[in-house]
Amino acid sequence: MEILTTKKQVREYVEKTRNSKKKIGLVPTMGSFHHGHLFLMEKSMLDGCLTIVSIFVNPLQFGPSEDFQRYPRNIEKDISILNKTGINAVFMPSVEEMYSKNHLATIFLPNLAEKLEGSIRPGHFAGVCTVVAKLFNIVQPHNAYFGWKDAQQLIIIRKMVKDLDFGISIIGVPTVRDVDGLAASSRNIYLSESQRKQALVLSQALQKMKEMVEYNKIRDAKTLISLGRGIIEKENVELQYLEAVELENLEAVEKIGKNTGILGAIRIGDVRLIDNIVWI
Amino acid sequence: MEILTTKKQVREYVEKTRNSKKKIGLVPTMGSFHHGHLFLMEKSMLDGCLTIVSIFVNPLQFGPSEDFQRYPRNIEKDISILNKTGINAVFMPSVEEMYSKNHLATIFLPNLAEKLEGSIRPGHFAGVCTVVAKLFNIVQPHNAYFGWKDAQQLIIIRKMVKDLDFGISIIGVPTVRDVDGLAASSRNIYLSESQRKQALVLSQALQKMKEMVEYNKIRDAKTLISLGRGIIEKENVELQYLEAVELENLEAVEKIGKNTGILGAIRIGDVRLIDNIVWI
Repeated sequence: MEILTTKKQVREYVEKTRNSKKKIGLVPTMGSFHHGHLFLMEKSMLDGCLTIVSIFVNPLQFGPSEDFQRYPRNIEKDISILNKTGINAVFMPSVEEMYSKNHLATIFLPNLAEKLEGSIRPGHFAGVCTVVAKLFNIVQPHNAYFGWKDAQQLIIIRKMVKDLDFGISIIGVPTVRDVDGLAASSRNIYLSESQRKQALVLSQALQKMKEMVEYNKIRDAKTLISLGRGIIEKENVELQYLEAVELENLEAVEKIGKNTGILGAIRIGDVRLIDNIVWI
Repeated sequence: MEILTTKKQVREYVEKTRNSKKKIGLVPTMGSFHHGHLFLMEKSMLDGCLTIVSIFVNPLQFGPSEDFQRYPRNIEKDISILNKTGINAVFMPSVEEMYSKNHLATIFLPNLAEKLEGSIRPGHFAGVCTVVAKLFNIVQPHNAYFGWKDAQQLIIIRKMVKDLDFGISIIGVPTVRDVDGLAASSRNIYLSESQRKQALVLSQALQKMKEMVEYNKIRDAKTLISLGRGIIEKENVELQYLEAVELENLEAVEKIGKNTGILGAIRIGDVRLIDNIVWI
């Protein structure tokens, strides 16, 4: 596995591989790997891609009061994991390598980026879009892999790729869950044992709503959300949002059907967790 | 010369030429060609590039009260000119081909894009950056050519390319002038004969300031601007701005020196004209 730390090294590495005619797959991550990340990498390798994983905790996507400083970083462990996966290269730039001191250019997707997560984390998706666009331009992949766990992020990046004509296939990969149902997330390590038990209420509520749709054929969004809220509000967690939306534009829907999803966020102490179910 | 009207045609055309190992040069234009455009194309061809010219009057960069509808369009004449230049291909998409109905993604360069032209045309540079980023992603050129006449645009696009890691060389090409000194611009045809005479005051003021710097060694920005203002204000035109700035960040400078410029804009009736002198 090649370890690349500068943009120049990436461009040279990618240029060298052009002749192999192999597709390039990019898996953008913030490191601190869990099974969800490994699933993204496996998908890229299964697609026959020469696979490049990026590890970069992107300051631009964290708000001033958010967890940029304490976000889990485990570079050595991450590299030892990557060495076992069979991926081809890792790109792990410093913040100084990624951003010049007077960085200005920012990509906005008004409306889409302001809903749900965006309403709680203003500027978050502008930061995500900007760093992802940079990674796309540096790596120039054919495919890029994102998890459905961050559904809004996936939807926004797909829209950015379409609107700005990146010509890259954005592959959405299903959420990986622990045995207790909790969606895999690097932030799960923030949770104490008792908080983790409380946290399960979000995936449990989503699972219950999924069953109501799929087995009981209940499609009315209000009924489902009210059921989900009821389950979550029994626990001592703060429900930040729980909404049934059209996946393309994140507009509220009245009925669950193809290309809709229910997206939720809770806060336990100072840990925020998101999860969702989608019908795609 | 190949005439391409869809993004797909451009991608296929560019893919076909990859093997030739020739650099690709892109000349983005809004058509209605004048000598300035031809100079950009010549520069690309002289650089040995396979040269693609785009013609697209970009609605996103016009404000609601601006001249999008009446902006000069001369496609047949433009094509007959292009046929004589030796360029390789022209990309002339429709608005529908370029933008989906619900286009959202927009690239902002806060600060840089709000100064000078941006203060008078809010949103203009977001529109420019967005369409140029799209063209860059569709054509994937090695070089792209822009005129120094639109100095702020050139500076902003260079900054966007750097900040978003496009990996494209942005080549600035000197302003082409008519024999009377007026900077070549597609908007010059809006001017009546008497307005054209009045319009000369801007290039004349800039020329006078240039002489003061280069022959009289006057470098003090206030003195120069005051001289320039004096010349312009004698004519019956509206001076919108005349500023001495650092070219990299468009901040006001006190002294003219390397990498500074004086940028001006006037309005005559409902025609806006811009011009500048730069020391690069």
